[in-house]
Amino acid sequence: MSTVRPILDMNAFDASNGAKGAVGRRLANLGAASVLFYREPIQMVSAKGAWMTAADGTRYLDFYNNVPSVGHSHAAVVEALSAQIATLNTNARYVVSVVDDYIEALKARLPDALSNVVLTCSGSEANDLALRIAFAATGRRGVIVTRTAYHGNTALVTDVSPSALKRGAPPDWVETVPAPGREAYRDDIAGGFSRAVRDAMARLDARGHGTAALLVDSIFSSDGIFADPAGFLHPAAKAVQTAGGLVIADEVQPGFARTGAAFWGFQRHGIAPDIVTMGKPMGNGFPMAGLAARPAHLADFCATTGYFNTFGGNPVAAAAGHAVLRVIEREALQRNALDVGALLLDGLRGIAAGHERITQVRGAGLFLGVDLGDAGAPDAAFTTQVIDRMRDQGVLIGAAGRYGATLKLRPPLCLTTEEAARFLDIFERAVSA
Amino acid sequence: MSTVRPILDMNAFDASNGAKGAVGRRLANLGAASVLFYREPIQMVSAKGAWMTAADGTRYLDFYNNVPSVGHSHAAVVEALSAQIATLNTNARYVVSVVDDYIEALKARLPDALSNVVLTCSGSEANDLALRIAFAATGRRGVIVTRTAYHGNTALVTDVSPSALKRGAPPDWVETVPAPGREAYRDDIAGGFSRAVRDAMARLDARGHGTAALLVDSIFSSDGIFADPAGFLHPAAKAVQTAGGLVIADEVQPGFARTGAAFWGFQRHGIAPDIVTMGKPMGNGFPMAGLAARPAHLADFCATTGYFNTFGGNPVAAAAGHAVLRVIEREALQRNALDVGALLLDGLRGIAAGHERITQVRGAGLFLGVDLGDAGAPDAAFTTQVIDRMRDQGVLIGAAGRYGATLKLRPPLCLTTEEAARFLDIFERAVSA
Repeated sequence: MSTVRPILDMNAFDASNGAKGAVGRRLANLGAASVLFYREPIQMVSAKGAWMTAADGTRYLDFYNNVPSVGHSHAAVVEALSAQIATLNTNARYVVSVVDDYIEALKARLPDALSNVVLTCSGSEANDLALRIAFAATGRRGVIVTRTAYHGNTALVTDVSPSALKRGAPPDWVETVPAPGREAYRDDIAGGFSRAVRDAMARLDARGHGTAALLVDSIFSSDGIFADPAGFLHPAAKAVQTAGGLVIADEVQPGFARTGAAFWGFQRHGIAPDIVTMGKPMGNGFPMAGLAARPAHLADFCATTGYFNTFGGNPVAAAAGHAVLRVIEREALQRNALDVGALLLDGLRGIAAGHERITQVRGAGLFLGVDLGDAGAPDAAFTTQVIDRMRDQGVLIGAAGRYGATLKLRPPLCLTTEEAARFLDIFERAVSA
Repeated sequence: MSTVRPILDMNAFDASNGAKGAVGRRLANLGAASVLFYREPIQMVSAKGAWMTAADGTRYLDFYNNVPSVGHSHAAVVEALSAQIATLNTNARYVVSVVDDYIEALKARLPDALSNVVLTCSGSEANDLALRIAFAATGRRGVIVTRTAYHGNTALVTDVSPSALKRGAPPDWVETVPAPGREAYRDDIAGGFSRAVRDAMARLDARGHGTAALLVDSIFSSDGIFADPAGFLHPAAKAVQTAGGLVIADEVQPGFARTGAAFWGFQRHGIAPDIVTMGKPMGNGFPMAGLAARPAHLADFCATTGYFNTFGGNPVAAAAGHAVLRVIEREALQRNALDVGALLLDGLRGIAAGHERITQVRGAGLFLGVDLGDAGAPDAAFTTQVIDRMRDQGVLIGAAGRYGATLKLRPPLCLTTEEAARFLDIFERAVSA
């Protein structure tokens, strides 16, 4: 049995009693695959910047969704995308210069060694391919992930996503390690995490799998957001690479300037991943994702399997992705994530000092986690209460972590200091009520 | 060892000697995952209707790409998509009416029993999920596909895509059957195919897997396009369903009016699939795909695994998809596929009567296959010659089938009679040269 709280259960609408109106219609259409938020789901009609507007006119400050990362409906992305789709949208069997322009702009931000890029439609497809590249490059099968990891929704990637499992456990070739927080590793997070990874490697060796890859989201989003101390991933990554395994940095969450300190999450840890996967914020909502790998590793995979992605790397995705890179630069969004993130972190720590139900505040840039508890123990019910109260005050926020008791702050990178202040005010009232 | 000619090798650019300019740049960016067409790849800059325009000004009639199925850069789709992306693009955790409007329009074209829809980013993701639904619903693992099947690019779906394998064979839980052509089944295609499927079921039973699903593309695109006689799938589908297995109709290729005779390929065969998967033409190039299933089957899967698709079912995809459905109706594209497809088929048969190197012409609507041979034997080299000659005359076309010796005709559904006549003229010259 999985001991993890399934990530989709957090703050989810309970469909077991049915529903009427727009929600009833949704349930009839999506059935068991419906994933609506909130006890009373919200019907949305528009969004701009950090704000979403509901059908009843309510405006919500969006602290949940990191896909429209440069801001909902960003004009520069909308224009680039609309112009390209009216001109040419085709597949990668033809040369289209906008596609190579984009890949080169992306590569300019990546380690030189990872000079081949494969563009896909989703982070799931990117991680699915990354794992197979690691299997082909190492001739091994074992994969190490954190205990509450989430890396996507394909069959293969679900195997390495314990937080997606409602029943059962990951397969024999997957080893999990505790998320790198003080709860598991006390004050030596780097050393403790590295020892846990080396122990996992030994178990994979003992079972005959060997270690093909350590697959990590360097902000540990689904685990509950663990960012500090910067650099703690280094000894674990080194141990895996020394033993001939690959390090796959899953940048779907921390990538594209989110942590403020760096463009990619792995850079905060000073590691040199063998494969970098990316997704959600890459096209500000246009379905696109991808990976960067060493040419030799990609060639190892392509020697046995033909890989073609119909929509991957289409010119519209390239136009959207390139616009996102330009906006991040032009609007100095990495710097904004650093500055406004620091303001938020300070503000949250100030509030925490006066509230015993806030057990810890942590994170990097505009990706922060706030543990909520009761007498020091994680309190999922209270977390849901706070989420509901904040929704009533016009703030959208979700939960994460093994116990579902970590508030996950993940606003657009364009968040202003005024919006941050508004959030802090509403959060303080919600946690105090 | 796989005896299949890998589908990606057909008409592919040979990168082994390197390249300069735009092609060299592409190779440096994509490496071994590059999939360029033609010995001298084409750089494209724009496209409209059935035509694509290259950087050197050459205009090409597109008989290859069925993604922009209602026509490249179709104004109604571009407008719907551009308007929605400027307004709201979010995920399925919120209710957005344009999403349910679209799903209901889609469901109106599907069998009533398949009343739950899951929207994904790619046909690969749809088939990956469909297989897992079949595993969960049946408690079995075995899957039957055709010998040169292609169902997508995830790890799981590659296992049931023999045509993607450059080395090795499908895993133990996959059984393949010959494609339903006369070569394998003579004049009793329905009976022969059904017997082959029943034999495969017996082998899966004997190995302890049982039959979870028969997964078929009802136009058998990668196998070489086998459409007739309409109805031949019925006995095989019935045998699988009678034994408690599921029939998954992969409509990524034949769906959305392509065959002219019906909106879905499976309808030509009078079968009642348990799951319908769809993709490529669904958004005319916007990355979107999905599946329709029985609520109970979907619930079986969701009971064990949380499934969420970040980009799947976003409002922009819904707007694009709904525009595609409206265009197919308003422009009577299903009727056009039937009429212009029949003209093409007649024309091809006329040409074949005078050319011994054309061994067979077949297909339905605007999805036709032309076998090319030498003294009756499949001739891949001649097929590549014809493809190159047609490119020189401004027509884009690809190959398919076990031997890479079947020309695959798959133009946009808006193809005019004049464009069909132009194609026939150029084809006749290419095959006669």
